[in-house]
Amino acid sequence: MATYPNTGLKPLEALRASTEKNVLVDVKGRRGYSGTLEGYDVYMNLVLRNANEIINGEVKGVHNRILVRGDNVIFVSPSSGD
Amino acid sequence: MATYPNTGLKPLEALRASTEKNVLVDVKGRRGYSGTLEGYDVYMNLVLRNANEIINGEVKGVHNRILVRGDNVIFVSPSSGD
Amino acid sequence: MATYPNTGLKPLEALRASTEKNVLVDVKGRRGYSGTLEGYDVYMNLVLRNANEIINGEVKGVHNRILVRGDNVIFVSPSSGD
Amino acid sequence: MATYPNTGLKPLEALRASTEKNVLVDVKGRRGYSGTLEGYDVYMNLVLRNANEIINGEVKGVHNRILVRGDNVIFVSPSSGD
Amino acid sequence: MATYPNTGLKPLEALRASTEKNVLVDVKGRRGYSGTLEGYDVYMNLVLRNANEIINGEVKGVHNRILVRGDNVIFVSPSSGD
Amino acid sequence: MATYPNTGLKPLEALRASTEKNVLVDVKGRRGYSGTLEGYDVYMNLVLRNANEIINGEVKGVHNRILVRGDNVIFVSPSSGD
Amino acid sequence: MATYPNTGLKPLEALRASTEKNVLVDVKGRRGYSGTLEGYDVYMNLVLRNANEIINGEVKGVHNRILVRGDNVIFVSPSSGD
Repeated sequence: MATYPNTGLKPLEALRASTEKNVLVDVKGRRGYSGTLEGYDVYMNLVLRNANEIINGEVKGVHNRILVRGDNVIFVSPSSGD
Repeated sequence: MATYPNTGLKPLEALRASTEKNVLVDVKGRRGYSGTLEGYDVYMNLVLRNANEIINGEVKGVHNRILVRGDNVIFVSPSSGD
Repeated sequence: MATYPNTGLKPLEALRASTEKNVLVDVKGRRGYSGTLEGYDVYMNLVLRNANEIINGEVKGVHNRILVRGDNVIFVSPSSGD
Repeated sequence: MATYPNTGLKPLEALRASTEKNVLVDVKGRRGYSGTLEGYDVYMNLVLRNANEIINGEVKGVHNRILVRGDNVIFVSPSSGD
Repeated sequence: MATYPNTGLKPLEALRASTEKNVLVDVKGRRGYSGTLEGYDVYMNLVLRNANEIINGEVKGVHNRILVRGDNVIFVSPSSGD
Repeated sequence: MATYPNTGLKPLEALRASTEKNVLVDVKGRRGYSGTLEGYDVYMNLVLRNANEIINGEVKGVHNRILVRGDNVIFVSPSSGD
Repeated sequence: MATYPNTGLKPLEALRASTEKNVLVDVKGRRGYSGTLEGYDVYMNLVLRNANEIINGEVKGVHNRILVRGDNVIFVSPSSGD
């Protein structure tokens, strides 16, 4: 475990560490996206590749690439995406 | 502090890459717009050309040009618009 | 990382191009306004002239001039206003 | 890209033009205020004098002076207030 | 374009004029507070003294001092507080 | 235009005056917290010590320390916490 | 105007003090996360390790690491997480 001097692992560092890895993203309105994190910005807008769209727990579609707006994000879980 | 080299594909770069291509835009309130991305700004306000307006999954109208306000955007999917 | 030359038609440019033209504006709460775009600002606050107020699809009133606050705007459609 | 000379009537100019005139202000939650616009600021916070408070279309009260917070404003209609 | 000299009574000036006077404050969620305005800031956060808490039109409690967050304020009415 | 010398008790001063005193904090969603105000910041994020969590008027739990996010705060009442 | 020396424990200091400790985080929509606080930023975006996801009071899943967006946070309780 890399040591973090005092302020711990910054959220954007957690995103950076998850780039090109599978992530699960939950957004408002009982929706989620599971795919490879291609990139992000400081507003937590996210770009996912090969992303399943999950609505009410069911996969409703697949997107080669999808840009998810940060405003609606509840959480990003790097591990659960695997 | 471990440093991670790659910040991946920035969301605005993903939008830039989709300019003049077909995109699907989902907004709050079970609405969507599918059309050619004419342009965008840093707030993810989007200009679409020949855009279908989709409400509750049904095409309800067509707009030669439509300016969609970024605030309400949930996602932009470049691929699914084709 | 490929760089993309064209950032397309900026949303505010689309508004500028629609000044003194008929536009349809949809706002949250199943409301819309159709009239001549007199002006706008960077927050997408809009000034319309001779604007019909449309609630649940029905024209409920006419305003010589109406200032619509940008926060509630879902889309502005220059063409559909004609 | 054609450049458009005219940015039209700025929203704050429309407010300035309505100072000391009767305006109708619609706010979220099916509320409205009709009275003389005493003043405003850049956030569209408004000061009205002798203002009727209208809830669900009915006048529910009169305020000598009322400060309406811009956040909740849907529209300001200078004409309809007369 | 006619220029208008007078920008009217600024909202914060209206608050300043109401300091140490009785005000009625309506906030989202059918709540209101009626008491003496002790102070305010630029975000319209308000400090009231001897304030009645009014919920659904009924007085539900009295606070020696209460700090009301500006975000939820719908209006402030200096007169009606008397 | 009369100028008013006194801008009254600033909201952050009211919070400062309540530090290490008992306060009642109401937040959106019919929740409240009653405890000792350990500290605050300019966004009205609050740190309470020995705080009761009150949901729908009933004490549902006690927290040694709780950090309440300012965004959801409706009011802070220094007196009522005693 | 009395000046108060002590501004108490700043909210971000409370978060810093909880780094690498167990915390309970409540977010909008009757959700919560209980786990070890790995890090945070000034927007109260939080990184938790080995976090239980609690929905309507029931543990619904476990995340090795989860990034919770600050916007939706209601409170963070360092103690209750133990």
